[in-house]
Amino acid sequence: MGRTSDAKKKILHAAQSLIELQGYSALGVAEICKTAGVPKGSFYYFFESKEALALAVIDEHWTAERCDWIRILASDAEPLQRLRQLFEATEARQQAGQESCGAVSGCMFGNLSLEMSNQTEAVRKRLQDIFDAQVEMIDAVITEALGRGDVVVADTREAARSVVAQLEGQVLFAKLYNNTSQLSTLWASCVALLGARETQAPVGI
Amino acid sequence: MGRTSDAKKKILHAAQSLIELQGYSALGVAEICKTAGVPKGSFYYFFESKEALALAVIDEHWTAERCDWIRILASDAEPLQRLRQLFEATEARQQAGQESCGAVSGCMFGNLSLEMSNQTEAVRKRLQDIFDAQVEMIDAVITEALGRGDVVVADTREAARSVVAQLEGQVLFAKLYNNTSQLSTLWASCVALLGARETQAPVGI
Repeated sequence: MGRTSDAKKKILHAAQSLIELQGYSALGVAEICKTAGVPKGSFYYFFESKEALALAVIDEHWTAERCDWIRILASDAEPLQRLRQLFEATEARQQAGQESCGAVSGCMFGNLSLEMSNQTEAVRKRLQDIFDAQVEMIDAVITEALGRGDVVVADTREAARSVVAQLEGQVLFAKLYNNTSQLSTLWASCVALLGARETQAPVGI
Repeated sequence: MGRTSDAKKKILHAAQSLIELQGYSALGVAEICKTAGVPKGSFYYFFESKEALALAVIDEHWTAERCDWIRILASDAEPLQRLRQLFEATEARQQAGQESCGAVSGCMFGNLSLEMSNQTEAVRKRLQDIFDAQVEMIDAVITEALGRGDVVVADTREAARSVVAQLEGQVLFAKLYNNTSQLSTLWASCVALLGARETQAPVGI
């Protein structure tokens, strides 16, 4: 069983790297198995289709990213500072990716949303669930900030979705320009979107 | 020559529809020619590669969209109202697309940025130029609004990029959820991003 689950892990990791580099559609099962160093037969032993593999890659990626989000957003820091830390962690992750593979890979969920959402309903539904979860986590922080009088927003859910949209839009630009420096504006945009300008800026930390 | 340029147009239009539905990577020359109703030999008569076709599709799409942007952003309306009209036109275009083909196709430039930017440098450069042009057009309107005291922004270029990022992020969600209603929040987000809250909202038109 050790050997078997090793092969599954290798396929998952190879698929994740290849999807980040070239997207989903361009990906072939033969290439995944070659990169993973496993025989082609292994693939269909673990995954009934390329779509099933995509769902597994998405789930594994979100499990890891969700842990980071929870760690940051549920800390003892003040609510808006937790959002700031989330943006800084996003910038740091994109920078690390760029240093290790030469190109900013962007957000896997955003990439797959634009590439795949009109092609497979199962993937579309999974990505919707992930973005809903992200919006809900940000909403909880904004609601806390609102209770403290730190922000002025009419609808915390809409505000949270605007923050996630800003994050996705700026990560898109970071990928397109292969430059993560634009991500440093996320905090200022978030302050503006949440009407926190007066109380929070200049924050000076 | 009439027949020849017809075939080129048919290929371009078929490629544009197919790219909007399924992205670039999943696209084959045979499928493009079948959809266009032209013999496969025609393709390589007009385009030396799939990449050359992608560039032509991008250029044609931007030429049309740029006309819309100029018409709206250079009108006699007040600066912020022009931005509002741009968002409304974006929402209307996505709705019309959804009605005609059943799915929100999103922004072709955003879609291709996430799908292709790490694959072909020529496409990456072209998409960068297009987003730079969009940011420049929005920047001009923000600068005008700043001169009238309608907005409070420290850096008009950064503010313009945040507005375009917000647009791209929300269009991503419209595509993923196959629902354009979220786009109606673009105006409120723009008002917040530009610090126009006090003077502009509630605008009531």
